[in-house]
Amino acid sequence: MEKNRIEAFSDGVIAIIITLLVLELKVPHTEGVVSSHSLLSVLYGLTPKFLSWSLSFFMVLIMWVNHHRIFNNIKKSDNGLLWINGLLLFCMSFVPFPTAFMGDYFSQPVAMSFFGLCMGSAALSFYFLRLYLIRHAELFRDDVDIDLQKKLLRKTVTGPLLYFIGAGTAFVNVNIAYIIYAIVPIYFIFFGIKKNQNKSKQII
Amino acid sequence: MEKNRIEAFSDGVIAIIITLLVLELKVPHTEGVVSSHSLLSVLYGLTPKFLSWSLSFFMVLIMWVNHHRIFNNIKKSDNGLLWINGLLLFCMSFVPFPTAFMGDYFSQPVAMSFFGLCMGSAALSFYFLRLYLIRHAELFRDDVDIDLQKKLLRKTVTGPLLYFIGAGTAFVNVNIAYIIYAIVPIYFIFFGIKKNQNKSKQII
Amino acid sequence: MEKNRIEAFSDGVIAIIITLLVLELKVPHTEGVVSSHSLLSVLYGLTPKFLSWSLSFFMVLIMWVNHHRIFNNIKKSDNGLLWINGLLLFCMSFVPFPTAFMGDYFSQPVAMSFFGLCMGSAALSFYFLRLYLIRHAELFRDDVDIDLQKKLLRKTVTGPLLYFIGAGTAFVNVNIAYIIYAIVPIYFIFFGIKKNQNKSKQII
Amino acid sequence: MEKNRIEAFSDGVIAIIITLLVLELKVPHTEGVVSSHSLLSVLYGLTPKFLSWSLSFFMVLIMWVNHHRIFNNIKKSDNGLLWINGLLLFCMSFVPFPTAFMGDYFSQPVAMSFFGLCMGSAALSFYFLRLYLIRHAELFRDDVDIDLQKKLLRKTVTGPLLYFIGAGTAFVNVNIAYIIYAIVPIYFIFFGIKKNQNKSKQII
Repeated sequence: MEKNRIEAFSDGVIAIIITLLVLELKVPHTEGVVSSHSLLSVLYGLTPKFLSWSLSFFMVLIMWVNHHRIFNNIKKSDNGLLWINGLLLFCMSFVPFPTAFMGDYFSQPVAMSFFGLCMGSAALSFYFLRLYLIRHAELFRDDVDIDLQKKLLRKTVTGPLLYFIGAGTAFVNVNIAYIIYAIVPIYFIFFGIKKNQNKSKQII
Repeated sequence: MEKNRIEAFSDGVIAIIITLLVLELKVPHTEGVVSSHSLLSVLYGLTPKFLSWSLSFFMVLIMWVNHHRIFNNIKKSDNGLLWINGLLLFCMSFVPFPTAFMGDYFSQPVAMSFFGLCMGSAALSFYFLRLYLIRHAELFRDDVDIDLQKKLLRKTVTGPLLYFIGAGTAFVNVNIAYIIYAIVPIYFIFFGIKKNQNKSKQII
Repeated sequence: MEKNRIEAFSDGVIAIIITLLVLELKVPHTEGVVSSHSLLSVLYGLTPKFLSWSLSFFMVLIMWVNHHRIFNNIKKSDNGLLWINGLLLFCMSFVPFPTAFMGDYFSQPVAMSFFGLCMGSAALSFYFLRLYLIRHAELFRDDVDIDLQKKLLRKTVTGPLLYFIGAGTAFVNVNIAYIIYAIVPIYFIFFGIKKNQNKSKQII
Repeated sequence: MEKNRIEAFSDGVIAIIITLLVLELKVPHTEGVVSSHSLLSVLYGLTPKFLSWSLSFFMVLIMWVNHHRIFNNIKKSDNGLLWINGLLLFCMSFVPFPTAFMGDYFSQPVAMSFFGLCMGSAALSFYFLRLYLIRHAELFRDDVDIDLQKKLLRKTVTGPLLYFIGAGTAFVNVNIAYIIYAIVPIYFIFFGIKKNQNKSKQII
């Protein structure tokens, strides 16, 4: 039962994070006479914020899916798991800030890089969650294959790695950095659909 | 179980969206001496925002009802359903932005039309959700009538169509566009009450 | 099951409303040199906002308790109940606005009165919910006493009535109006604790 | 069942509180030319807000864990418990305000002390919750050891006490006050991990 309440609480926190992201999309106030033309400019000017919001939305969504898959393998919880999960929620609940920061300063390497570092840290916390479980294998359901879990653990490195590579690339070119970030959710989603139900194919 | 967690997560996201809408109703600061008269003007001046908020509230509410009805027919989930549902939540979680935009620039065709386009996209994502399920009929509960689902799929076009017609009409007259948008929830709710429990009568 | 999902969704919406109220308590920026004295003035200056927030918090809390008690008596749901509950959530999700308005213009009769009208409408929607159930008694659990429900319906008028009396009194004296509003939750809570578990003693 | 709905509602409110905290981390607008250097200054300038947010996050998290543990021992609820829990949620839902206040005026004793007083009050409401349960022992599950609960009640004083000591210390040195506040979650978490599953070791 403890496990179910952690899962429900995490779901609640993630649902709130993913929905709060849109609050950063504030309607700017146009100066001068309002016309169809000026409003279209306003919408067009929000492009960086749309890009930032939508990328962040799908990143949080795949984190939710991963969280769900990891907890599906668990039969009970202990205090260590509780606090590692707390750390994970801490990293994830920070996401609205780098998202807003990147949306405001899209062309700035520092903002683009900071976004990748934060997302990478959140993704890395999933690595530690998996690692903790492998070291406390008594928490897994009895039918869970530990060797498969170890394989998945190694694959879990890919996500954070891509985010950190993107964070470095931002100082060369912010657009390429954005594309590197976007690879993670795109790959995860389309790969996931193709290899439907094959649970060994998670990357973040 | 996977299905239940998707449903609970979606419910959480929709509950947050519908409640966040009111945050756009900000108390404006009156200039000069505050009096009963100036505060009544303040409230009266918020009329476009009230109209925008209340329309949006009921649109999201009927989307929740529809989501609920669709998932009632499902016995299990797969990856494709997971991501189509994710796309649906993506469209829906964007709703607070066009709602605020329309509330701020109610008399502007661009804002009124943008609202319809966004709502139409969200409603359309329900069409794709239904389409996916019909193409993956193994996800339906065993007692679900596929022919009825195909009939419902065709009816699901009505909602987005009205929203897109409204979005076009906005460039002729914003008030008529608003009325066209409002037809969808009004029809859905009153029709739903009259034909109580008759599940073949959903339109969006 | 339909009933449970309505209940869970309503709980989610009410939990968000009650928590969002605090967002109106914004930290004001002091002008000039910041000192312990100026910060204490800032806190003291927020008194109207604290009063508005705390009153609203407990009003929403008792609405949640009432919602819970009413749904405890129901065994199934129909479309009419779905939409009356939707109307109730509509009224309740508006609450953050009049709360903020009253907090900003506590000494103004219009703001104080508007708060009472909004709260009264929300409380009145509970009357309609009860009325609908009595007219569709097949929704009640089999062990529910309809005569007791009719008695409770009449008592349900007290809450809205007090709110509307307060709303009128605001034009005479805003402080007395505030006290009249506060009677409802105070009476409800202390009466409820005294007559513990005696379910015929609900007033709003 | 009543108990479960209180628990689910409380979980919802706490999940929202913990996630809303990040909204106080607003992206400041830099003046003059935007450069990597100016953005790093912006991030560095937010240090007090990061400190305030992260401390508050873990404090609310341990309150959630405590709430969970207390309710685990309960088999049913009554009206008194309902309202004491309401008071607890009232104190907790206030947390975003002192967090923002401390983040804005980190170096000011009044803001630092106010934070401790609010956190102490929230922690104290857990004391009253435990006290109420001990006085209404019929609410406990049959296998609950009342003597252990009395011992835990005494330990529950430690948390509020540390917060109030910190609140006093703020007038001597705000940094020491911050460290005193931080002891509570750090001790709670690491102690909890070491003495895994030993339920008599809760301090707040």
